[in-house]
Amino acid sequence: MTYCVGLCLNHGMVFMSDTRTNAGVDNISTFKKMSTWDIPGERSITIMSAGNLATTQAVISILEERSKEVADRDPDILSAKSMFQVATLVGRTLKEVIAANAQAGQRADSAFNATLLVGGQVGDGEMRLFLIYPEGNFIEAGADTPFFQIGETKYGRPIILRAYEPDMSFEEAIKLLLVSFDSTIKANLSVSPPLDVHVYRKDSLKTGRTFRINADDPYFQTISNGWGVALREAFTRLPDFSFDDH
Amino acid sequence: MTYCVGLCLNHGMVFMSDTRTNAGVDNISTFKKMSTWDIPGERSITIMSAGNLATTQAVISILEERSKEVADRDPDILSAKSMFQVATLVGRTLKEVIAANAQAGQRADSAFNATLLVGGQVGDGEMRLFLIYPEGNFIEAGADTPFFQIGETKYGRPIILRAYEPDMSFEEAIKLLLVSFDSTIKANLSVSPPLDVHVYRKDSLKTGRTFRINADDPYFQTISNGWGVALREAFTRLPDFSFDDH
Repeated sequence: MTYCVGLCLNHGMVFMSDTRTNAGVDNISTFKKMSTWDIPGERSITIMSAGNLATTQAVISILEERSKEVADRDPDILSAKSMFQVATLVGRTLKEVIAANAQAGQRADSAFNATLLVGGQVGDGEMRLFLIYPEGNFIEAGADTPFFQIGETKYGRPIILRAYEPDMSFEEAIKLLLVSFDSTIKANLSVSPPLDVHVYRKDSLKTGRTFRINADDPYFQTISNGWGVALREAFTRLPDFSFDDH
Repeated sequence: MTYCVGLCLNHGMVFMSDTRTNAGVDNISTFKKMSTWDIPGERSITIMSAGNLATTQAVISILEERSKEVADRDPDILSAKSMFQVATLVGRTLKEVIAANAQAGQRADSAFNATLLVGGQVGDGEMRLFLIYPEGNFIEAGADTPFFQIGETKYGRPIILRAYEPDMSFEEAIKLLLVSFDSTIKANLSVSPPLDVHVYRKDSLKTGRTFRINADDPYFQTISNGWGVALREAFTRLPDFSFDDH
């Protein structure tokens, strides 16, 4: 499986993805699931992927190749005029790759399925974040739903629902995502560090800080251990149930 | 969906189940998913169910009818000589009900599937907790895995993994389960109060305290609100991420 989150903040976006891929439980590998493109001063685009690795790598490679061939740039994600056009293009590419694989003859084409998060900013447009389905259509994050998760989403969802604030600093947002990822990693073998991070600052129109957090990263260790302790303390401070009232 | 947890403690067991059933998102109802049987001084048995409601109600009705017909009591869960035999009997009944429904002709028999938790104590045997699969086979909780969840298990799993202690009091265990249920309820429409609870005291060999916790229960409200506040406080106290180290 996989776990990726894209988080919209008032002053930017934070993207985080794990790197574990597995076929069953015994064929596990490390692959980057986050790709970034930019034309400094003009656009920044981040894509994260969950699902069939052959599908997602093909989609990224196609997008990558198209963006390099200047003559062949129309349509590509570096020339699309808006984030909506970028999402449309990525969705179409995803749908085509899945269809091409399914054609070759597997009973269930769900095996080729993948889901993508596409976020960024183009020109004087707003920052936008899309979740793209295998069918190529997509939904957009907004004030009511300011983040998207793909992959193994459930374990790490409650803490984001409770602690997210749109005006969090990048530092707080990364902490929040690390708590969410740590809960997922502790409960599910198919999600694992290293974790890739991209922090996009609103209106910067270029790829921001990108870095990788390894399992032995001291801060990640602090969060992982500290969160367990903090949870137990928080739990202890809540009043115990009383049979007298029930 | 559904969410049920059976928790083994040193001095007893705590069972908790929600009551929401749904077919799609618009046909939602309230059904009890927990059943208890006892012969005071001799045995106590609790069954919780997740999955197709027609299947689980049929299983419970068959077990119930058999246990009432004294002449027909062999084999039934009130005469089985051990919890292992109880689990075997329940598993066989579940498998038969699923097979009988599937025979009638639906393409995917998975639609009739259900999973059960069976816990309790018989005679001078130990307390035991089993998770029974639709195939009728089962696994047993032990010191390494002292609790089972069925249904919508993921949202509420991290807190149990972090805060469970085998020597918790019943009051602490109920608090833990309410936190786990609250996280699930907040994230998933298919799980909802009222919540049914059964607290079995080790070696009591009779049904213990059973009660229902409604959405407006003051203690449940305290936990639900208090946990949100406590989580945010715990989160705030963790050190923020620093870009300087990455």
